[in-house]
Amino acid sequence: MARYDAYLSSPISVSIRLLEPVQLSIPTTEQRVPGDPFTADVKDHPGWVAYSASGEAEGQLIYAHFGSQTDFAKLQALGVDVRGKILLMRYLGWDGRKVRNAERFGAAGVIFYSDPQQDGYHYGDVYPKGDWRPPGGIERSDAIDLPYPGDALSPGWASVPGAKRLRPEDVPLPRIPVLAISYGSARQLLGYLGGNVAPYDWQGDLPLTYKTGPGPARVRIQTKMNNGDRPIWNVIGRLPGKTAPDQWVIVSNHHDAWVFGAGDPSSGTAALLELSRDLGQMAREGHSFRRTVVVAFWDAEEMPTIGSTEWVEQHMEELLDKAVACINMDSAVFNPDRPLSVSAHPVLHELFREASRSIPDPKTGKSTFEVWRDAQNTFRHTPTEDGWDEFFNPEAELSEPYVFAIPSDDADAFFDYLALPASDMYYGADYGVYHSIYDNFHWMKTVADPQFRYHAVMAQLQGLVVARLANADLLPLDFATEAGFWRRSYQGLDKSSHEKGQQVPKLREALDLIDQWEMEAKGLAQDEIELLSDPARREAAQSHLMELNQMIYKAPRNFYRPKGRADSPEQRNLFFGTSYDFQGVSGTSLPGIRFALDQGKVQEAEREADVYLEALRLRVATLRSIRQSIANIR
Amino acid sequence: MARYDAYLSSPISVSIRLLEPVQLSIPTTEQRVPGDPFTADVKDHPGWVAYSASGEAEGQLIYAHFGSQTDFAKLQALGVDVRGKILLMRYLGWDGRKVRNAERFGAAGVIFYSDPQQDGYHYGDVYPKGDWRPPGGIERSDAIDLPYPGDALSPGWASVPGAKRLRPEDVPLPRIPVLAISYGSARQLLGYLGGNVAPYDWQGDLPLTYKTGPGPARVRIQTKMNNGDRPIWNVIGRLPGKTAPDQWVIVSNHHDAWVFGAGDPSSGTAALLELSRDLGQMAREGHSFRRTVVVAFWDAEEMPTIGSTEWVEQHMEELLDKAVACINMDSAVFNPDRPLSVSAHPVLHELFREASRSIPDPKTGKSTFEVWRDAQNTFRHTPTEDGWDEFFNPEAELSEPYVFAIPSDDADAFFDYLALPASDMYYGADYGVYHSIYDNFHWMKTVADPQFRYHAVMAQLQGLVVARLANADLLPLDFATEAGFWRRSYQGLDKSSHEKGQQVPKLREALDLIDQWEMEAKGLAQDEIELLSDPARREAAQSHLMELNQMIYKAPRNFYRPKGRADSPEQRNLFFGTSYDFQGVSGTSLPGIRFALDQGKVQEAEREADVYLEALRLRVATLRSIRQSIANIR
Repeated sequence: MARYDAYLSSPISVSIRLLEPVQLSIPTTEQRVPGDPFTADVKDHPGWVAYSASGEAEGQLIYAHFGSQTDFAKLQALGVDVRGKILLMRYLGWDGRKVRNAERFGAAGVIFYSDPQQDGYHYGDVYPKGDWRPPGGIERSDAIDLPYPGDALSPGWASVPGAKRLRPEDVPLPRIPVLAISYGSARQLLGYLGGNVAPYDWQGDLPLTYKTGPGPARVRIQTKMNNGDRPIWNVIGRLPGKTAPDQWVIVSNHHDAWVFGAGDPSSGTAALLELSRDLGQMAREGHSFRRTVVVAFWDAEEMPTIGSTEWVEQHMEELLDKAVACINMDSAVFNPDRPLSVSAHPVLHELFREASRSIPDPKTGKSTFEVWRDAQNTFRHTPTEDGWDEFFNPEAELSEPYVFAIPSDDADAFFDYLALPASDMYYGADYGVYHSIYDNFHWMKTVADPQFRYHAVMAQLQGLVVARLANADLLPLDFATEAGFWRRSYQGLDKSSHEKGQQVPKLREALDLIDQWEMEAKGLAQDEIELLSDPARREAAQSHLMELNQMIYKAPRNFYRPKGRADSPEQRNLFFGTSYDFQGVSGTSLPGIRFALDQGKVQEAEREADVYLEALRLRVATLRSIRQSIANIR
Repeated sequence: MARYDAYLSSPISVSIRLLEPVQLSIPTTEQRVPGDPFTADVKDHPGWVAYSASGEAEGQLIYAHFGSQTDFAKLQALGVDVRGKILLMRYLGWDGRKVRNAERFGAAGVIFYSDPQQDGYHYGDVYPKGDWRPPGGIERSDAIDLPYPGDALSPGWASVPGAKRLRPEDVPLPRIPVLAISYGSARQLLGYLGGNVAPYDWQGDLPLTYKTGPGPARVRIQTKMNNGDRPIWNVIGRLPGKTAPDQWVIVSNHHDAWVFGAGDPSSGTAALLELSRDLGQMAREGHSFRRTVVVAFWDAEEMPTIGSTEWVEQHMEELLDKAVACINMDSAVFNPDRPLSVSAHPVLHELFREASRSIPDPKTGKSTFEVWRDAQNTFRHTPTEDGWDEFFNPEAELSEPYVFAIPSDDADAFFDYLALPASDMYYGADYGVYHSIYDNFHWMKTVADPQFRYHAVMAQLQGLVVARLANADLLPLDFATEAGFWRRSYQGLDKSSHEKGQQVPKLREALDLIDQWEMEAKGLAQDEIELLSDPARREAAQSHLMELNQMIYKAPRNFYRPKGRADSPEQRNLFFGTSYDFQGVSGTSLPGIRFALDQGKVQEAEREADVYLEALRLRVATLRSIRQSIANIR
């Protein structure tokens, strides 16, 4: 049990009252569903937003679409002044940033809701009949917009009991009241908005014309929050490795939820408990893997990823030394009618695909590999909550499942901080009870996964990947696939910089190095096969495996940048990063170069490009030296 | 008064009854609007579709999206068998083709409706508050799918009294019942559909999950039609030209409507009546233009373009000899909040833009030129009912108004049959009372154009263009702009054929000729300015004007193809044509080459390309010979 002190948030009460043109109390709790016992006490679970300020705000209402930078610019262009107003915003994107935008432009308060266009009847039957958000469902979230994940008051260090803490008032947490309502409630408010007809692409799926306001609707919102330090606990278990106890394979899930969280996270927690039981059984029978398996149940993932981040901060040096990968789940099952969704460091992609080949799909009897790929082909033109990533081409028919390149959730700290192979996954990224009271056992049992067969699929997938990583003779990290992602990323950057008239010839130099890297990676994979398939050499290899695996699992550190990015020292992964600038995209590949180019700083981009070239040369040298070591084994 | 006999359609009665899972009579008439006296007798105006068969059909209901070829393929892929079923389809596209598709796949009947996503609350307030379709509004249309416009029983010849007529049973008119309902009624039906959740992009804007069926909804539809021969009348007036009576400028509008048609067509009819009055006044005062103005009010435009087509068929030789252009309006005002919409043969574009510069916009006092361009920039990312054409690039900020290259409505016969400069126009292509009972004087007076100021703008625009064409010393046809459209079209074709691996080097040859054409066209424009701005030469030119103008107005005939296209002899315009094939796009530029390539017939495409090359050479020679004639004037 690892304890940290964390600055947490919880609600005491929230309310909205429509004052003009009519007086009306707007529901801020969800609706009871007949037959669903978990909804009996909806009144105890208001539509709150974590880290909202406590307070009251009154003003005319404005519909601000998603509340993005672009949306605020559009409001300005339409002559809509948001100062002193209450902004009604739809979910999608980075909620903390939306609230920050509202504050920057002088808004008095924010109301969030999830439009049926996002996860409601636009996609299918709503709960309790189907998996999508009913008119009374409320999505909860956090309104954090800090340039670091984890505990708000201990940036960069672990908030172990007694550690230094910042004061909340010195940290840019929300200063205005923020709360969340259902689309049923939002419809009531939108019906009282006048002013401009909102732009074409701002129109949602409620049966009315969305207008921007301000007014005539005038509302008063009140939030009473209980924000403060409280203990959180990660639960950590260990099955020490037989031959390489200092090579750690971490397998994890979080255990906190917004309300009941049958899907998010308990479906994943349950799967990991099953895996833990199996590992316990193994241990009792005297078995273990070649490497150490660390089982971790994180706390406070929802506000945001505090448990995992603090643990990584506490064990940073040890993890850099010992961690092979973190195979995080987050949630096992949301919607088995939608594609399995795996996001992982690219060295892990092939491993996930391979594992999926041997897991039968419960409904069809086909392999999970096939069902995963086929479902992605079916839905590749459908917008997805998580978004197809920058590397995905929806026009091309997939011949194998597509794994997203950027993990998130509790994988963040491992991936962003330490550039470690990490992943997260769930069956069906798109569904509609997300962060609502309806994400409960009744929903899971009647709608999502009544026989828990997809829970089993996910437990098997996570378990197989972990077992392979923990027990393989040679670690199955696939550097060739990784090279492909870097190439696509460099090509995209080269193209977009040329379109902007920016000349960065070093981008093309990198492409040459990536070609070499890919060639060496493919050579290495071949070398490994030859080594292990020749009985004599395999025998000779045994005494070298420790050293070889050491070299292999350390290779991802080629892209670890000890001092972090200049604008965000916590972010040390050269491949991916998040910008906290208001102009740029928020998360992207090759962040060092791209953010500089976004800001028009070509010289800085060139300096960054040099850092990347050096890392790429190191990568090529690393692969060559592993191959040399293998060649020496006779 | 020019009389023709036309095969027309009108309703006696239509009805829909939901039989399962509940018994329900579905409204097939519109709703009364308090304060709108024109809606008193809604019961007399059912939701009929012209040329529906009379009959009864009963079957399970299926939602078939827009009823396109692609949509039927999607239904098949989903395992939905449409045989014997009733198909609920949304408007947009070619309604006759949708019904033909339904028949080909064995459906028993078709119900049309217009989803709020197309022209309802998605865009703005609905009537009576605003210009968009209310839940009770029904769009009417015709279900013709014949490879020729005009009267169904006299393809290619004028149906003057006594002329030969085909028998209706020998013409592929609809054989199944077809009718139209409101989205209020459609919502009732969609609520009883089960089966597959319809694909993501089939979801409309009604507040429910669209499913394909079949069933459980089971419906019975009945149509009793009065289809048969009836007389139609065009009203034609003439103001003979002073010096060139055999050069005709035609100015026109239709006079038939679905119900009251305050916008479509009466706003245009009223504008043309004003212009006619002015011309009459001129005549009484002894004035006239250099050229003859022919004023035409067409009948039976709505089912479809019968009056204009029969007249063109009757006067084909004379028009080929004498017609300079047909400046058709169709409807003056639909929605002044949306951009002015002009579609015209490219030689006319500059003339429309020029005319718009001198007409003040009633609301802003700016020029109509500016307001037109600015509104297009505002809405260039918004889907429009008429669709931005294949030449339009929404990404580029417009510096001048964009004129669409392909006219339609009553301009069709002039443009498609004779390759003549023709045009149509209306203020605001997008609105929601289209073809409903709400397109009435009360709507026009309270919502669309209460002070009729945009009627005046349109009358001025049409009048100015006609006056310039009728009275200019040298006809202001702009062949340079036209060359630009041909170039874009050839470039697009060259690109798409390469992508399909088709090699048609003659496409590139054409580009060289287009360059020469454009150079000569710009030279000609310069020559004309020099000729007319030098007093001595201008004086000398007077005796040559007739001959010069003759050459200029005959130049569009460079792209007239006497025998028509092999697959459609009526279509004689090389620049644009419609395919009646089920696979291809329906209307496109360079049809001879493109349709051959679409079908993979590269050799035929090459033969066609030769026809085009010859026409392009003729065009270059024509321009050179006009320039030579001008050079000779000293």
